[in-house]
Amino acid sequence: MAETRQWRLASRPVGEPTSENFELVTVDRPEPDNGEVLVKTLYQSVDPYMRGRMRDAESYAEPWDVGDPMRASVVGEVLESNAGQFSAGDIVTGDLLWAEHAVADANELQPVNPDHGPISTALGVLGMPGVTAYWGLNDVGDPKPGDTVVVSAAAGAVGSVVGQLARLSGARVVGTAGSEAKIEWLTEELGFDAAINYKETDDLSAAVDEACPDGVDVYFDNVGGPITDAVWPRLNLDARVAVCGQIALYNETEVPTGPRKLAKLIETRATVEGLLVSDYQPRWGEALERLSQFVQNGDVQYRENVVEGFENAPDAFLGLFEGENIGKQLVKVAEYDG
Amino acid sequence: MAETRQWRLASRPVGEPTSENFELVTVDRPEPDNGEVLVKTLYQSVDPYMRGRMRDAESYAEPWDVGDPMRASVVGEVLESNAGQFSAGDIVTGDLLWAEHAVADANELQPVNPDHGPISTALGVLGMPGVTAYWGLNDVGDPKPGDTVVVSAAAGAVGSVVGQLARLSGARVVGTAGSEAKIEWLTEELGFDAAINYKETDDLSAAVDEACPDGVDVYFDNVGGPITDAVWPRLNLDARVAVCGQIALYNETEVPTGPRKLAKLIETRATVEGLLVSDYQPRWGEALERLSQFVQNGDVQYRENVVEGFENAPDAFLGLFEGENIGKQLVKVAEYDG
Repeated sequence: MAETRQWRLASRPVGEPTSENFELVTVDRPEPDNGEVLVKTLYQSVDPYMRGRMRDAESYAEPWDVGDPMRASVVGEVLESNAGQFSAGDIVTGDLLWAEHAVADANELQPVNPDHGPISTALGVLGMPGVTAYWGLNDVGDPKPGDTVVVSAAAGAVGSVVGQLARLSGARVVGTAGSEAKIEWLTEELGFDAAINYKETDDLSAAVDEACPDGVDVYFDNVGGPITDAVWPRLNLDARVAVCGQIALYNETEVPTGPRKLAKLIETRATVEGLLVSDYQPRWGEALERLSQFVQNGDVQYRENVVEGFENAPDAFLGLFEGENIGKQLVKVAEYDG
Repeated sequence: MAETRQWRLASRPVGEPTSENFELVTVDRPEPDNGEVLVKTLYQSVDPYMRGRMRDAESYAEPWDVGDPMRASVVGEVLESNAGQFSAGDIVTGDLLWAEHAVADANELQPVNPDHGPISTALGVLGMPGVTAYWGLNDVGDPKPGDTVVVSAAAGAVGSVVGQLARLSGARVVGTAGSEAKIEWLTEELGFDAAINYKETDDLSAAVDEACPDGVDVYFDNVGGPITDAVWPRLNLDARVAVCGQIALYNETEVPTGPRKLAKLIETRATVEGLLVSDYQPRWGEALERLSQFVQNGDVQYRENVVEGFENAPDAFLGLFEGENIGKQLVKVAEYDG
């Protein structure tokens, strides 16, 4: 019988996750029931939100169980279909497993048209991160021409799209990132007005001051922690803070207090709102259509950071917390012959 | 020439203010110019927001200058009028001084009709605190029948009105306060469903859990700090946090970090918004009309904590930080003979 490999959650991390928390197992390749298809993974996504699933705590999603295969968005090829919607050879995307092969309900997969661009973009600029950026910025952040928009983790899969969309809205755009290569990409290729290398800055507050002489109207926060502390005092009247991620804090084991300095919100009447892309499921297609246009006409550029080999998936995930990725972090699991 | 007394800011407090920060001076009684009136203070308000004005830092209002008389809302009697709007003997309210007498532009005063109830209510339930409660709750908190509404400093001038208005909206209402007398007032007279004495609770989180079995839909925050930390993890999906005051933190000299645990907002898509009553100036009368009806028909009750004597005004203010007041804290400066 054919086999496949899966990455399972071996143990829950305490603080920073390590490779010890992952276990690679070989199992029988599953077979599709009626209405299901067997998918061969070509690209697997690793995302910061996965850190939350490894934790045994209530959140917006069920935690993963220790011993179970972990879940991930993938782009893959249909090997066998027992569903009318798909045929062998079709390229699909969906929420599957950290696995070389997986079966899925055909209703939970979306077709990917390889003629529209590289299939891997269905996990990035034309997938969940792109839609997060699109609705998070436009619905929660709501930038206006002349606004100053600050985005943290600006060279990441979400942040890089947020910044470019904000620029298209006529805003002044400032990003934070953690390497000179990222800063260069943001300012010289993506059109950011300024970018701050938070790892090389002695005084983050002064850097934000300098980059935002008119204060901050929209803060799209992917990281939390010290960068948020530096942006907070510069919030303008009626500023909007879109809380999308808090990767700087995901590995904290002990955070003694919750929100502080909320008096800044009284001063500014600013609004802080959490966003989750699944709320925008009904408007997913609307975002993808716009993003596709922007990518095609060059208004939105993207990068992918591709780690080769399924066995390296945990390393690709762990690299997110080191800020190793420019653009979308992907694992290439198998070659696409299309 | 007639004299009057004023309290001036003697020095800026570091941490908790003390009586050393105030100076009582005797000066010539000012005379009204054209368009002005001379007002004899009957009641003076002391409010938590005044702590911010004592600080030399940009906020939603200009800081007071050291050596200048401090400002306060007062209810007083017109002694002399050089303005057509008012005559000697009229009762007025406005933003004047910590002073026994002051002159004011007649356009910046509102008439108070003594037939509508005790004139002191113009500084409390039918003044700035009442309007803050009305619009803060209804515009920012937006409670629905069945919601659980938590209000901190619930026995204060704003909180006590917020809780009663939330109850009228069909919500389950939970308050926090710092004495058994306050708890008794909230639960036995004002109709709160539960109240937590935070000074007598070993485990604030467990107390909030017990009082809010269905979580928290609206949190009207007057205090910040540990009470906010206890409410935060219990926020429900789409919860609204109205940030009205942070009195627990106003005297902190060193707050090392800003907001933490914002990931809770991603989980819940909750909104945190600061509110300032001056934004509702155009809708002030609408709130007062409703509040007057509620007070007249007994749906909204109020208490006043009156300190007698102008010389005790700083003590009345300092008492706010000790949680000494049940209801609105006032200073009775002169007898009203109406």
